[in-house]
Amino acid sequence: MSLIYLLDLCAVAVCAITTTLEAHRRELDLFGVLVIAVISGIGGGTVRDILLGRLPVYWIHDPVYVAVGLIAGTATFFLGRRISFPKNFFLIPDAVGLALFTVIGTSVALKLGTPWLIASLMGVITGVFGGVIRDILCNEVPLILRTDIYATASLAGATLFILLEQLEMPHNTAMISAIISIVIIRLAAIRWHIHLPRLRADT
Amino acid sequence: MSLIYLLDLCAVAVCAITTTLEAHRRELDLFGVLVIAVISGIGGGTVRDILLGRLPVYWIHDPVYVAVGLIAGTATFFLGRRISFPKNFFLIPDAVGLALFTVIGTSVALKLGTPWLIASLMGVITGVFGGVIRDILCNEVPLILRTDIYATASLAGATLFILLEQLEMPHNTAMISAIISIVIIRLAAIRWHIHLPRLRADT
Amino acid sequence: MSLIYLLDLCAVAVCAITTTLEAHRRELDLFGVLVIAVISGIGGGTVRDILLGRLPVYWIHDPVYVAVGLIAGTATFFLGRRISFPKNFFLIPDAVGLALFTVIGTSVALKLGTPWLIASLMGVITGVFGGVIRDILCNEVPLILRTDIYATASLAGATLFILLEQLEMPHNTAMISAIISIVIIRLAAIRWHIHLPRLRADT
Repeated sequence: MSLIYLLDLCAVAVCAITTTLEAHRRELDLFGVLVIAVISGIGGGTVRDILLGRLPVYWIHDPVYVAVGLIAGTATFFLGRRISFPKNFFLIPDAVGLALFTVIGTSVALKLGTPWLIASLMGVITGVFGGVIRDILCNEVPLILRTDIYATASLAGATLFILLEQLEMPHNTAMISAIISIVIIRLAAIRWHIHLPRLRADT
Repeated sequence: MSLIYLLDLCAVAVCAITTTLEAHRRELDLFGVLVIAVISGIGGGTVRDILLGRLPVYWIHDPVYVAVGLIAGTATFFLGRRISFPKNFFLIPDAVGLALFTVIGTSVALKLGTPWLIASLMGVITGVFGGVIRDILCNEVPLILRTDIYATASLAGATLFILLEQLEMPHNTAMISAIISIVIIRLAAIRWHIHLPRLRADT
Repeated sequence: MSLIYLLDLCAVAVCAITTTLEAHRRELDLFGVLVIAVISGIGGGTVRDILLGRLPVYWIHDPVYVAVGLIAGTATFFLGRRISFPKNFFLIPDAVGLALFTVIGTSVALKLGTPWLIASLMGVITGVFGGVIRDILCNEVPLILRTDIYATASLAGATLFILLEQLEMPHNTAMISAIISIVIIRLAAIRWHIHLPRLRADT
């Protein structure tokens, strides 16, 4: 569990860093930036825990999660302007974060004995809802409702993970396979502009 | 309870169908449409269960709710464009859905021994909050805050239901009376453009 | 506890009154105004209780909170237009409300044995999240993400309160000191336009 914990904290930090870097186009003060940075990192797991009734939510008795988000966000706020990152620098850590959150969320729900449809949904919620709450706070239509294979990659990975667990593959192997598959689907969707059918106003 | 369960599922399906049909004016892909279709159907009961502490929320161990929302949403997404519905085709099922959700929510809260003011509030929340969350996700001011007698019909029906229960009317008779009164108030408000006093910027 | 309870209800009333007075610039009917008036008053404590797992949330079994919000909101809706308040009339009660909610929220979290970082966060959430939910419902970027020392005053007071409790100052003295410090910081920030560093689009 120790490796998972460390990876989870890394994903929180990545979320906080990317959110702070993107915050330039919004008019926020330091406090506002830190709020959305932390929420991006822990919002998904928070919604999952509330829906599943795992209360108090996971970060209440372990302040390390919030602290990591605050430190990563503050450092990026003050240093982020000096360093210019290549445009796609964060796409890979971002995809890894999505994959980690998804697999952790699915795993938590399965342990509580939820049906597979609900367990995969909990994986997706853990993966994407931090970003959804951030976008709602910033008064934007959440990205996952509009754009390419983001939540879908999460859903595919969650489903694969459940399938592998059903087939009694060792837990760690199932986890790593699902994580890798989410990262690959996500990056492939970005690379080749794959997306789902869309409703258009003129049809 | 079996009839209530079936009606509840019908209301979830109606919510998913009307949300998907209305989604044409928003730029969403299939995934986004399904998210808001399912949330419209189960969001109200979810908020009610969280506030009341009935956790995990009701659909966690019964995936039929989510499944019905997904199937109704997907079918409407692919077939909805071919069929042209009369403009007001869904007003009646929509009003029935509001009525069902309201009465079920009020009933759940009363069973937990909440005061009547809170029980009627839980009825209204169950009735309208699915649509509120959907509108927030789509970055719109929730309809219930702006328009005609929608939440008010829900509130009137919840109050009537509590009153009839106090008067020791048989449970099913009280339920049906409340459901019918909500449908009638809602449809009358649409028909004769009845609305509550409104604040205006110039006063 | 009786004084705290009374002050808490006063803060709910102040929130409902100021929200209703400000609602003129939004196009809401009476129902919509009452919804956001009540949510402003009880939203922060509700989110705190959910995150901490204190369910059902505090107003479920004590309808006085909702009733106070409804009465204050209704009275303001009908009388508010006749009376013209001086522009800054509500700044002081508003700051006192923020201070009260913050200290109550921090105190609740400390009693449950949460770490200090989380307890201060719960204080801030109790203080500001009612307004955040109101702004989200009205489709606006929440004020606390954009403007001057509001949440920061709350955070400073919560931290001071925890510090004084650690130093074993009598509970009531610690509470009053924290409340006064929040009010002073908040009013000083308004008076001298103090604010945190801000990200700008051109940097």
